[in-house]
Amino acid sequence: MLLVFASAKLMAEIFERLGQPGIVGEILAGVLIGPHVLGWLAPSDFLHTLSDLGVMFLLFRVGLEIKSSELMKVGGTALLVAVAGVILPFFMGWAIALFFGQPQIESIFVGSAMVATSVGITAQVLAARGLLDTRAARIILAAAVIDDVLGLLVLALVSGLARGSVNYLELAATAAAAIAFTVLVAHFGTRTVRHVIPRMQARMRVAEAEFALSMTLLFALSVLAVYAGVAAIVGAFLAGMALSESAKGRVSELTHGVAELLVPFFLVGIGLHFDVSSFRNPASLAFAGTIVVAAVISKFLGCGIGALGVGRTDAIRVGVGMIPRGEVGMVVAQIGLNLGVIAHSVYGTIVFMSVATTLIAPPLLKLVFSNPRDTISKT
Amino acid sequence: MLLVFASAKLMAEIFERLGQPGIVGEILAGVLIGPHVLGWLAPSDFLHTLSDLGVMFLLFRVGLEIKSSELMKVGGTALLVAVAGVILPFFMGWAIALFFGQPQIESIFVGSAMVATSVGITAQVLAARGLLDTRAARIILAAAVIDDVLGLLVLALVSGLARGSVNYLELAATAAAAIAFTVLVAHFGTRTVRHVIPRMQARMRVAEAEFALSMTLLFALSVLAVYAGVAAIVGAFLAGMALSESAKGRVSELTHGVAELLVPFFLVGIGLHFDVSSFRNPASLAFAGTIVVAAVISKFLGCGIGALGVGRTDAIRVGVGMIPRGEVGMVVAQIGLNLGVIAHSVYGTIVFMSVATTLIAPPLLKLVFSNPRDTISKT
Repeated sequence: MLLVFASAKLMAEIFERLGQPGIVGEILAGVLIGPHVLGWLAPSDFLHTLSDLGVMFLLFRVGLEIKSSELMKVGGTALLVAVAGVILPFFMGWAIALFFGQPQIESIFVGSAMVATSVGITAQVLAARGLLDTRAARIILAAAVIDDVLGLLVLALVSGLARGSVNYLELAATAAAAIAFTVLVAHFGTRTVRHVIPRMQARMRVAEAEFALSMTLLFALSVLAVYAGVAAIVGAFLAGMALSESAKGRVSELTHGVAELLVPFFLVGIGLHFDVSSFRNPASLAFAGTIVVAAVISKFLGCGIGALGVGRTDAIRVGVGMIPRGEVGMVVAQIGLNLGVIAHSVYGTIVFMSVATTLIAPPLLKLVFSNPRDTISKT
Repeated sequence: MLLVFASAKLMAEIFERLGQPGIVGEILAGVLIGPHVLGWLAPSDFLHTLSDLGVMFLLFRVGLEIKSSELMKVGGTALLVAVAGVILPFFMGWAIALFFGQPQIESIFVGSAMVATSVGITAQVLAARGLLDTRAARIILAAAVIDDVLGLLVLALVSGLARGSVNYLELAATAAAAIAFTVLVAHFGTRTVRHVIPRMQARMRVAEAEFALSMTLLFALSVLAVYAGVAAIVGAFLAGMALSESAKGRVSELTHGVAELLVPFFLVGIGLHFDVSSFRNPASLAFAGTIVVAAVISKFLGCGIGALGVGRTDAIRVGVGMIPRGEVGMVVAQIGLNLGVIAHSVYGTIVFMSVATTLIAPPLLKLVFSNPRDTISKT
């Protein structure tokens, strides 16, 4: 823990001094101490657990700063962004993989991995710079939640194809459960929480009752999210958002401490998976390079076009904000590897693409959000 | 995580309403959901990790409220308390085990387990009631740190006996390393930190630099403590204490959040190990009962006598505060089981004693600290 935490903060400090986002330093700290550079640390169950908790608390903290009514306002745009941000990357990934001579099913899997969006990275960058209350940030968050549901369906469909049979009824049920959970919690969560939590808290005698109730809600919605078929972090985000109108500063303060401690484990954890050993020959290097470029361009264009309705500045911001694939892309690669449909080299390429897009996004985000017209889109 | 956290807080709430310390409720929540009652949850590596982190943050938080100069003032009394609190329980445990027909080496092991002190429980009770600034609390904390070093030596000696050979030179080296680490950090820690941390912090650009530095110190001293042969929690406590004079409220706030989240895992973790299945026959029940009574009386008398120099009221408080064996007694039992020197029934008895003393202490603490003369011993 010492190694992870201290190296992450040291690299963050170095990057901040170089005028770069500290988050990139923390991920690179993982690459550096990971198995393929210094070899001081390998991914382990323990680190994985802390990493999962880290991203949960990251999104819970982000949720606390977002009112669901404000997210609903940008719902239409977010839906367009998410859908365009799924279609374009999927087909570009598929086509490029076919072009580089990958078999059909592996190409489809590469396409699916390109669909992923790791909202954690963007949210962390925006939260650190106090930009979560901008319209672009809200569109990104809403689109990322929708993207998670769409990504889940693409993955279920592709996994079905890989196994040779797609149960469309089951797929529809999965979709219905995921959408119902997300919409219901987003819509009624705030109201319910606003009525229930303060009353329970007033009657409770245990110390830090509000924090205890908030953590219970966080864990409960994360578990429910997994049952409903979406990611635990979507549940964590929804729990934060449900609490955003009733929770006082105390909950944010205490949660902030937990997030500060655990988020470095999430970032270092991404870096730890970075592996260049599959790129010994020029062909695979060219493939990986093309995939990374396509991953950046396809998300940027797809999501940017989806957001054009709110103006060019915000469309560019949204496009950039959706670029990082982070841990979500890696999970897709892992599933492909477990199903036996992708080769280890393709797995390596997807992981490389996930880390690379995650490293590219923060400096770009800094650039597009430092625009002097920043204040225009704030509410 | 939902199950552990929610059940702990629910039971804490119930106990607070019954006028009992919530901490007892949280441990009983572990007993209740544990393998021997409801069977919903068994101890696992994951829970164990969170539990270890929980007690580390608990003691770090306690350390943050204690100035090392104040702890040094009660050093003499604490040494007496710790030594008397080792000798009396050890010989009572040994004698009772022999009386109940246990072999020599098992009896010695029972004695060693009686030596343990789980300062976490007492510290948590006192911290929750804002009593850490009393003289009795400081004596308890200092004595518990010394007790940890002494307990380590007793255990090393007994393990040597169990393996048939005691290397006295090695034992002396272990003792020297442990004592040197503890004394040096306690003595020079605050000074060094007061000079170094604010300067480093002023130059750092990363967000929450002070928290990042504090966490690095916490992890570093915990790791060093283990290398020096003492428990990681002693390192965590010393790290907190070293920071107590320089750290501002921000670090306490953020650490408080982490502790609030993780401490329930520590408490529930203790309860999870509770096992009554070894007490099917009256003889083993009588043995376990006698051991528990002796564990309470021997620590109370030993530590109370050691603290008589500071007056009867505080002596009683110190005696009660040193009663809980908690996770430390369980670790000794586990070592004995791993070395193959104690039978599973004796292991069960020691664990039973550890949990029972931990459950008995908080209500007693509440009683002896509710004395109207409370204010006299505050500084």
